[in-house]
Amino acid sequence: MSTDADVIVVGAGMAGLSAAERLVAEGKSVLVVEARNRFGGRVLNEVLDSSDPTQVIEMGGQWLGPTQDRARALAQRLGLTLYPTYAEGDKLLERHDGRLLRYRGEIPPINPLVLADVGQAQARLDRMARRVPLDAPWSSVRARQRDAMTFATWLSRNVCTRDARSLLRVALKAVWACEPHEVSLLHVLFYIHSGGGFDRLVGTSGGAQQDRVVGGTHLLAAGLARELGDRVLLGRPVRGIGSDDGGVTVRAGDHQLRAHRVIVSLHPALAGRIDYTPPLPADRDQLTQRMPMGSVIKCMAIYDEPFWRRDGLSGQALSLVGPVSVVFDNSPPRGSPGVLLGFLEGREARRLSAVSAAARRDLVVGTFARLFGARAARPQRYVDKDWLADEFTRGCYTAVMPPGTWTEFGPALRTPVGRIHWAGTETATIWNGYIDGAIRSGEDAAADVLRADAR
Amino acid sequence: MSTDADVIVVGAGMAGLSAAERLVAEGKSVLVVEARNRFGGRVLNEVLDSSDPTQVIEMGGQWLGPTQDRARALAQRLGLTLYPTYAEGDKLLERHDGRLLRYRGEIPPINPLVLADVGQAQARLDRMARRVPLDAPWSSVRARQRDAMTFATWLSRNVCTRDARSLLRVALKAVWACEPHEVSLLHVLFYIHSGGGFDRLVGTSGGAQQDRVVGGTHLLAAGLARELGDRVLLGRPVRGIGSDDGGVTVRAGDHQLRAHRVIVSLHPALAGRIDYTPPLPADRDQLTQRMPMGSVIKCMAIYDEPFWRRDGLSGQALSLVGPVSVVFDNSPPRGSPGVLLGFLEGREARRLSAVSAAARRDLVVGTFARLFGARAARPQRYVDKDWLADEFTRGCYTAVMPPGTWTEFGPALRTPVGRIHWAGTETATIWNGYIDGAIRSGEDAAADVLRADAR
Repeated sequence: MSTDADVIVVGAGMAGLSAAERLVAEGKSVLVVEARNRFGGRVLNEVLDSSDPTQVIEMGGQWLGPTQDRARALAQRLGLTLYPTYAEGDKLLERHDGRLLRYRGEIPPINPLVLADVGQAQARLDRMARRVPLDAPWSSVRARQRDAMTFATWLSRNVCTRDARSLLRVALKAVWACEPHEVSLLHVLFYIHSGGGFDRLVGTSGGAQQDRVVGGTHLLAAGLARELGDRVLLGRPVRGIGSDDGGVTVRAGDHQLRAHRVIVSLHPALAGRIDYTPPLPADRDQLTQRMPMGSVIKCMAIYDEPFWRRDGLSGQALSLVGPVSVVFDNSPPRGSPGVLLGFLEGREARRLSAVSAAARRDLVVGTFARLFGARAARPQRYVDKDWLADEFTRGCYTAVMPPGTWTEFGPALRTPVGRIHWAGTETATIWNGYIDGAIRSGEDAAADVLRADAR
Repeated sequence: MSTDADVIVVGAGMAGLSAAERLVAEGKSVLVVEARNRFGGRVLNEVLDSSDPTQVIEMGGQWLGPTQDRARALAQRLGLTLYPTYAEGDKLLERHDGRLLRYRGEIPPINPLVLADVGQAQARLDRMARRVPLDAPWSSVRARQRDAMTFATWLSRNVCTRDARSLLRVALKAVWACEPHEVSLLHVLFYIHSGGGFDRLVGTSGGAQQDRVVGGTHLLAAGLARELGDRVLLGRPVRGIGSDDGGVTVRAGDHQLRAHRVIVSLHPALAGRIDYTPPLPADRDQLTQRMPMGSVIKCMAIYDEPFWRRDGLSGQALSLVGPVSVVFDNSPPRGSPGVLLGFLEGREARRLSAVSAAARRDLVVGTFARLFGARAARPQRYVDKDWLADEFTRGCYTAVMPPGTWTEFGPALRTPVGRIHWAGTETATIWNGYIDGAIRSGEDAAADVLRADAR
């Protein structure tokens, strides 16, 4: 039977594009079939000034950190320039009671007992995390016990002070975009290990938020898409995948495409919505029912300049009042305009996904004004991206495993089903949930396909 | 624009058929669109002897209990006869160490401390459950706290003895078909209240397993389907639902059907796989990512006669060894052939969904033989139904809410989205998860549609 390509890749996000690029480099014919009229998936630029390619902000994944080697290698290969996330000056912490604390360095000037409490919790998490095998979290020491409790339960048992629990909740939400009770302890440990440690996940300098790409991370996707050229087919949501002895048939709208193998690079919840013939095996299908996506709305207010810098502020802030809990200076490399970036995560994202755009803007800008003064109340422009409402993503940053998913269904996450292979940052062992993990997952899936073909 | 019906109902299970019946009774034109080439959903008969309509066994939902008033009313209206689940004689309990205990009545002859431990846990669960509002579990006392922990965490905190935890795990698995760590305490409490108490859920006489239908529960579906006649369209999996100001368009294969409103009676995980235009709101979509179905395989061994009855055994047994943990005498009303029914639930269902049919049969029949002697090792026939692998159900008995689903997403469970209404036993307030709940949910959705039309 004739085929349209050796391999069809479903989804033109970083995972799908990376898989395709690897396969093409190995001489395979490839088609990438993408639902949207754009590529990039959870990586998305917003142009501030079309006359200057560096004047962009990112509405999706935007940072590269140390040890994110595959993302950094790709940036280098594409000739992209990195620059550090703005971190000069003081940070702010807004306490529950509304009091603003201003400080320098990593450690806020709060009760040393609270700091010690956070520190011991973090050390304990790191110690447990290091013993979780990244390719098989279900086989780790006490896996069942740790997958049987929510992170909230662990917090309530192991963190003594309310303020420390609040700070750890903010950290959890910043990393996973969910509430502590939605995710299992084992998944938190896996994820910490996958990213190289708690500090690595939450940190700016030295951490996952360290560096930015001049022109935006979307250039990573654009570079790959350019290389793939007309192999990337946009605007074709894949609704069905059929497998038979001879190959696979991918149904996208009225189009049917044939190939020897298919790599599905959607996250599992979306991948589960495709109509498979024959139906997926039980464990894989039930897995897709158990990997909900986090909830995040990424919000930015744009000012003529980053006025907070002149006040000696870095633009970085934590708020225990909310609804925005984590804030960054997200100005483009030229340093103008000034951009404040705030995240709505977990419960706040859900609540503010349902209100009017104006109400959401007011609440976000209101947080900025409490932190940075009246001038922050009057941005030139406000933009946000509600990833929950995005039809072809349906949640960010990544899947959050409720208790039982890893230990009951873990092996089904990466195991191919016949000619169907799985990619996406949710399947990565290293930097799971990040751009780097997406690239690795695509490369891994491509390697699997090549190995399978060689047999 | 012309329509094919006032209302389209997606799914011809008990919920969908009940909704359609109500609407037709109120003068609405209705079409029920069903994926399978049969109606009944999770209700399914297996014929033992086609010459005798009472000689059937049920591969899906099969029992009616006290207070399941809507199911009982339907049975009565259709002229069906109920008979009690066989419960005469002794019960068996297989302990962890393999020792068989034989007893009469409800209380096994085990360590009184263990019995007291189970009793206090059950009393505590019942007391908490009564305070969960069935239409809004998220608004109950300590809802967040109780939705922040798994039932496993509650068990480890509130049940002192290992044996009591084992017994409660068996009970949980028998009711929810999941492991104690997959479900939130709040959901367990909601469900207990919804069914009228812990004993009601797990009991035979006086409980949810009390009565059977002569000819099988599928006659409930068949009666409704007969009344609906050619309004039920089989073999048409619904893949898309479009809504506009004028109505809804339901896409099933190559067919497009128009109506004023649609009732989707699939469970939320399956309902989430339909392609909606415009896309569902964020909270509803994310809810469908967070309502995984339980895991159960229903297994029956058929013997020429129920030989255990002559030994004074009821056929009812609990095994702490497994893989079958709960056993019933499921012989048809005539008392011949003899049928032993065993459930594989949670982890055991997942494990044995992946093995060969022969291996599964051997393990199930092996449990029966340990309990009922060598004769049980040689059934005339063995049948089972793996509901995990069933393409159009993908898990049973019902959805199990992981921590956070009720409190973060609960209101999206029943709230219509424009012209799209939701039914299915997962949406029921009374007897959620049961046939009775399915019927109630269908009737409730029909009433919603009528109210909406009247406005």
